Amino acid sequence: MEKGKLNRITDVECVLVGHKTISSGTHQTGVTFIRTAEDVFHQKLACGCSILNGFGKTTGLPQIMELGTLESYICLTNTLNVGVVQQALVDIMVKENEDLTSVNVVVGECNDGYLNSIRDCVVTKEDVYDAYRDCKKEFELGSVGAGRGMSCFEMSGGIGSSSRVFEIDGNTYTLGVLVLSNFGLREQYLLDKVEGNQLPLEQEKGSIMMIIATDAPLSDRQLHRVCNRMPVGLALTGSHMGNGSGDIAIAFSTANRFGSEEIHTLKQINDNKINVVFDAAIESCKEAVHVSLIENEEVIGQSGHVRKCLNQVKIQ
Amino acid sequence: MEKGKLNRITDVECVLVGHKTISSGTHQTGVTFIRTAEDVFHQKLACGCSILNGFGKTTGLPQIMELGTLESYICLTNTLNVGVVQQALVDIMVKENEDLTSVNVVVGECNDGYLNSIRDCVVTKEDVYDAYRDCKKEFELGSVGAGRGMSCFEMSGGIGSSSRVFEIDGNTYTLGVLVLSNFGLREQYLLDKVEGNQLPLEQEKGSIMMIIATDAPLSDRQLHRVCNRMPVGLALTGSHMGNGSGDIAIAFSTANRFGSEEIHTLKQINDNKINVVFDAAIESCKEAVHVSLIENEEVIGQSGHVRKCLNQVKIQ
Amino acid sequence: MEKGKLNRITDVECVLVGHKTISSGTHQTGVTFIRTAEDVFHQKLACGCSILNGFGKTTGLPQIMELGTLESYICLTNTLNVGVVQQALVDIMVKENEDLTSVNVVVGECNDGYLNSIRDCVVTKEDVYDAYRDCKKEFELGSVGAGRGMSCFEMSGGIGSSSRVFEIDGNTYTLGVLVLSNFGLREQYLLDKVEGNQLPLEQEKGSIMMIIATDAPLSDRQLHRVCNRMPVGLALTGSHMGNGSGDIAIAFSTANRFGSEEIHTLKQINDNKINVVFDAAIESCKEAVHVSLIENEEVIGQSGHVRKCLNQVKIQ
Amino acid sequence: MEKGKLNRITDVECVLVGHKTISSGTHQTGVTFIRTAEDVFHQKLACGCSILNGFGKTTGLPQIMELGTLESYICLTNTLNVGVVQQALVDIMVKENEDLTSVNVVVGECNDGYLNSIRDCVVTKEDVYDAYRDCKKEFELGSVGAGRGMSCFEMSGGIGSSSRVFEIDGNTYTLGVLVLSNFGLREQYLLDKVEGNQLPLEQEKGSIMMIIATDAPLSDRQLHRVCNRMPVGLALTGSHMGNGSGDIAIAFSTANRFGSEEIHTLKQINDNKINVVFDAAIESCKEAVHVSLIENEEVIGQSGHVRKCLNQVKIQ
Repeated sequence: MEKGKLNRITDVECVLVGHKTISSGTHQTGVTFIRTAEDVFHQKLACGCSILNGFGKTTGLPQIMELGTLESYICLTNTLNVGVVQQALVDIMVKENEDLTSVNVVVGECNDGYLNSIRDCVVTKEDVYDAYRDCKKEFELGSVGAGRGMSCFEMSGGIGSSSRVFEIDGNTYTLGVLVLSNFGLREQYLLDKVEGNQLPLEQEKGSIMMIIATDAPLSDRQLHRVCNRMPVGLALTGSHMGNGSGDIAIAFSTANRFGSEEIHTLKQINDNKINVVFDAAIESCKEAVHVSLIENEEVIGQSGHVRKCLNQVKIQ
Repeated sequence: MEKGKLNRITDVECVLVGHKTISSGTHQTGVTFIRTAEDVFHQKLACGCSILNGFGKTTGLPQIMELGTLESYICLTNTLNVGVVQQALVDIMVKENEDLTSVNVVVGECNDGYLNSIRDCVVTKEDVYDAYRDCKKEFELGSVGAGRGMSCFEMSGGIGSSSRVFEIDGNTYTLGVLVLSNFGLREQYLLDKVEGNQLPLEQEKGSIMMIIATDAPLSDRQLHRVCNRMPVGLALTGSHMGNGSGDIAIAFSTANRFGSEEIHTLKQINDNKINVVFDAAIESCKEAVHVSLIENEEVIGQSGHVRKCLNQVKIQ
Repeated sequence: MEKGKLNRITDVECVLVGHKTISSGTHQTGVTFIRTAEDVFHQKLACGCSILNGFGKTTGLPQIMELGTLESYICLTNTLNVGVVQQALVDIMVKENEDLTSVNVVVGECNDGYLNSIRDCVVTKEDVYDAYRDCKKEFELGSVGAGRGMSCFEMSGGIGSSSRVFEIDGNTYTLGVLVLSNFGLREQYLLDKVEGNQLPLEQEKGSIMMIIATDAPLSDRQLHRVCNRMPVGLALTGSHMGNGSGDIAIAFSTANRFGSEEIHTLKQINDNKINVVFDAAIESCKEAVHVSLIENEEVIGQSGHVRKCLNQVKIQ
Repeated sequence: MEKGKLNRITDVECVLVGHKTISSGTHQTGVTFIRTAEDVFHQKLACGCSILNGFGKTTGLPQIMELGTLESYICLTNTLNVGVVQQALVDIMVKENEDLTSVNVVVGECNDGYLNSIRDCVVTKEDVYDAYRDCKKEFELGSVGAGRGMSCFEMSGGIGSSSRVFEIDGNTYTLGVLVLSNFGLREQYLLDKVEGNQLPLEQEKGSIMMIIATDAPLSDRQLHRVCNRMPVGLALTGSHMGNGSGDIAIAFSTANRFGSEEIHTLKQINDNKINVVFDAAIESCKEAVHVSLIENEEVIGQSGHVRKCLNQVKIQ
C-alpha cells in the first residue's frame, strides 16, 4: 500500500503536530500536541474510539462515544500530568472560542516512570502552550514531546507516525497514525532481530496511545471499527496487550464536519468497502511503532535507568 | 425502606465528604471531595460505573470498567475546572502513597455556567486541598461545594444525599447516594407542585453526577447493574435525560477490598437477591435529588442570573 | 405532544404488524410479526439498540451494534421458542431474497411461563408464517400474538403501541413504539389506582421488549441514544427494572436506507435538536405500556393461573 | 509454554466435544457440540465474552454480559441454521432440567456458503442430538461438525483446538481454546509458506468463533479481558479482522460455579498476575487456527467449489 508524502499523520490535510520536550537530569518527559483541525470547536469532526485495554487515564472518551464527534485538539503527556495538561488545553480552547462554555478536551498518556521521576509532575501549562506553538507538518519523531521518557520493548520508544494512501470508488484518501509507544518486553519484539533481554523478566506494564486521522468519509461507528483493528497492527510488532497497558485508539475523519445546521448531510462509505481502510490503519499502526523505535536515540533517566535505542541493540 | 442514620452517603462506614464553596460576585462554584475509604490506593474498592448519557467530562471511567476497582478519592467540580482538580487530586494521592507512580483519579463535573462565570476557571489546587480537609460525616447539602452554581429544574440545585438500610440473607447493609444535580426544566418537575416556568422555553442542558456507596458484597458487574437503575430514580423526579446531560453513575462497595494478594477471595450476592439493592439505590437517588432542592437557598450569580430555591416556588 | 392517526407503531409508513395467537388450555402464547419495511434486506434501515437489562435471549443485537443497520423483519415470541421462530424468519428471508446467503434476523422474547406451559415449546414455523400473513396497519392489542400469555404488574399484559408526531426544522416526523410488556408487581403500578396485590410478595421476574420506528433522520448512534431513554418511560409506569428482566430496546429509522452504493449519503439531525425525539419516544413508551393493559382481557392459563385485566382491578 | 495432554480444549476437566458432520454432495455442513460442564444449568460457570467484530449471529451474548455466567452448553453450526440448532439445544436443556422454564443457550456460527448450499438449511434437530451423543475428550479436528464446509485463508478450515498449562501462586491451571475458523485470504497467511492465491482477489468475508475454557479462578470481567486478547492470536496467523467477519470469543471458568446460595464466595486472581493467562490464550488461539488447517483434508462442495488443504498447498 502506498505511503503518504511525509509518512506521517500530518499527511491528512489540516492536521499539525508539535512537541515540548523536557530533558533535564531525572526529568525525561514532555507534551505532544495534535492540532486536529481549524475551528474544530465549531466544525466538529466525526470521531470514534476504542478502549482496547482500559488500564489508562485518557480523558474525553465518554463524550466521543456519545456524540460521535471531536471538538478539541488532542494532547499526550505522562500519566501523572494529565490534569495540568487538560487545564491548559481548556485554556487554549477558551481563548480561541469566545462563545465556549463547555468543551470536551482529549488528553492521552503513557507512564514514563522508568526513565522519568514521574512523581514530581514537572509538566506545566507553559509546556502545553509551547507544544501548541511548535505545531507543524514535519514534526520530530522518537524520544520527543510526550515520548521523551517512554520505553518500547525495553528500548527507547515514544512518538512514531506513518500514513497510507488508498482509493475508494475512484477517489483517493489518506489515513495517518501517530503513536505514543510504551509497551512490550524486548524478547517479544518481532520486527527486527535484537539482542536478548539481559534484565530479569518483569511484568509488562506499558501502554500505547494511537491517534488515527483520515479524510475518508467515515461515520463515528466506522471510525470505532477502525480503532478495533489496531490490535492487529500491534500484535504484528510483538505486543501481547499485557494487563498493565492502557491501549487506547482514537480516530477522526475530516470528511464530515458538524456545524450548527439543524440537519447534517453526511457521506459514509459502504461497510462492504471498508477493508482497505482497515488495512491502511493496520499497516500505518505497525509501521508507526517501528518508526518510534528506529527514529530514536539512547535515553538516560532517573535512578541510573538507561534505554538503548533499536539501532544499538539490532543484530546486523 | 428504612433510611440510614444521617440519610447521607456517609452512612456507609469510612465514607467522608467535604466542600470548598466559592461564592464571590459572578463566581459561584466550588469543589466537593468524597473520601471513599482509608488507604484506598492499596486496598482498592470493588467499583462499577455507567455512562447513562456521555455528554460529560468525568475522568477515570475507562480504568474502572477495565479493572473493576476504585483506587482513589472522588472529586466533583465545574466542567471547565476538571483539569486543575484532577492534578490536585493526583498530588494528594502522591503525597499519601510513597510507592505510587500511577493512579486513576476520578473527577466528575456539571456545568454551572448559568450562575457562574465558568470561563474564568477560578478553582485552584488550594480549593481542592481545602475540600479534602473539610471531609466529615455530617456534611452540608444544597448550594455548597461543587453544587454552588448548579441549577436543577431551573431552581437552585447542587449537592443532595440520601441512604437506605436493607437486609440480605440475615445481614444488614447500607447504601448511600450523593448527587450533584444540575438538570431539568421547571415544568418537568414531579416531586412537588411548583410555580410554572416563567422563562421562555429553553433546551434542557443539564447533567447529574451520582456517586453510590454501599457495604453490601457486590462485584464490579453488579455495581454496574446498580448504576444502570439510576434512570428510574431520575425519571421519578422528572428527568427526561435530555441531550445536553452528562448523566454518570459510579458505585463502589467497601465489602470487597483488593490488596496485593495473588488470589483474591470475594463475596457477592446472588443476582436473584439483588432487587433490594436496586430498590435502595432507586429510592436514595430520587430522594437525593429532592434533598438537593429542599436543603437549598436562593443563589445570585453572573449576568444578573438568579435561581430561586424550591421553598420559594413551592405552591402551598 | 400530538399522537399519530392510529396511535400505533404502524403510523410510521411501511411498518406493518401481525399476530398468531395460541390459546388452548394450558398453552397461552404466540408470535407477533413486525414487517419493518419493503425489501429491507437490500435497502437496510438505520438501526440502533440498547440492552437496558441483558437478562434476555433476543437474537441479532451484535450485528445491529456493529453495522448500524437492520436487514430483516422482527419477530416476538416466548422465551423457549426463539429458535423455531428464528429459523422460520430465516426461511421467509431466504424465500423473499434469491441472492441471500447470510442474514441477521431479530427475534425478541419475554417469558410467559406463569400462564403458558412454556416447557412444551408449542410454537411452530407455521405460526410464524401465519403471523407474517396477518400483517396490517390496524393490528390488535393486548393479549394477542406474543403477548397472549404475558403478565404486566401482575395483570394481563402483552402488546401495546402508541405514537407521536413532532416537528424538526420545519418538517413533520412520526415516531411509534410497540411493546411486549411482561414486568412489574401490582403494587408498583403508577398509572392508575388498582386493587392491592393479594399474592404473597414475589421477586419481579418480568421483562419488556420495545420496538421503536421513526421516519426522522437519525443515525445508528442517535437511535441508540433514543433506546437509552426508554427507562424513563418505563419508570413512569412503575418499572424498577428488576434483576429478572430482559429489557431490550431496538430503534430503526426509515429515513436512511442503505443499498449497494459505494458511498452512502445520509441525513441526521443535529444532536442539539434531538430532545423532541427523546420526548416522543418516552411518551410513546409510557403510553404503549398503558395500552397493553387497557386494551386487554382476563387470561386463564396453566396450573389454574389467572391474570385479571386492568379494567377488572381498577378502583373507580 | 507447556501444552496440555491432548492439546485440546478438553484438557480442561469436565469439557467434552462432539460433532455431527453432513457431507453429501452440495451439502457440506454440520454441528459441533461443546458440553461445558455437568449440571451447568444449576451450577453456572463464570463467563465473559467479547464481540471483536459483530458481523455475526451468535445467540446468548447479552445475558452472558449482564449476569457473568454461562448456564448452557454451546453449539456451533452454519449461519442460516442457528435457529433450529438453538431450538434443539433448548430441548436438551429442558429434558435435562425438570425445573427449567428459561434458559440462555449459546449458538455460534460461521458462513460455509462457499462449499455448502447454505440456503437449503439442511441441519435438523436430530443432527444436534447426534452431536450431543458424540461428545468425548479426544474429538476430531478439521473439516468435521460445524467445520465441515468452512474455509480459512482460502484453504479447508474448520475445527481447531489447542491448550496450555501454567502456574499461578504455586497452583497449576489449564486453558484450552476451540476455534471454528472461516476467515482470511491465502496471501495473508503467515504461519507457513503456501502457494500463491490463484483466484481473483475477493473481499474477505469470513469469521471465527473462539471458545475458551479454563480452570483458573477468573471473574467474568477477567474472562472478558482474556477474550479481548484474541485479536493478538488471530493477527499472528494473518487475520486482518475484515469487515465481513463475525469474530466472537466466549470464555468460561470452571473454578467458580454459581448455585442457589444467597451469597457466593469466589476466587479471582490478582489482575497483576493475569499476563500468563493472556499468553496462554494467545498461544492456544494461534495454534488452534493452525491445527484447523493442518488436521484437514481437501473438501469438494457446491458449484464445483473446492478447498485444498494446507498440506496440499504448502511449499516444502
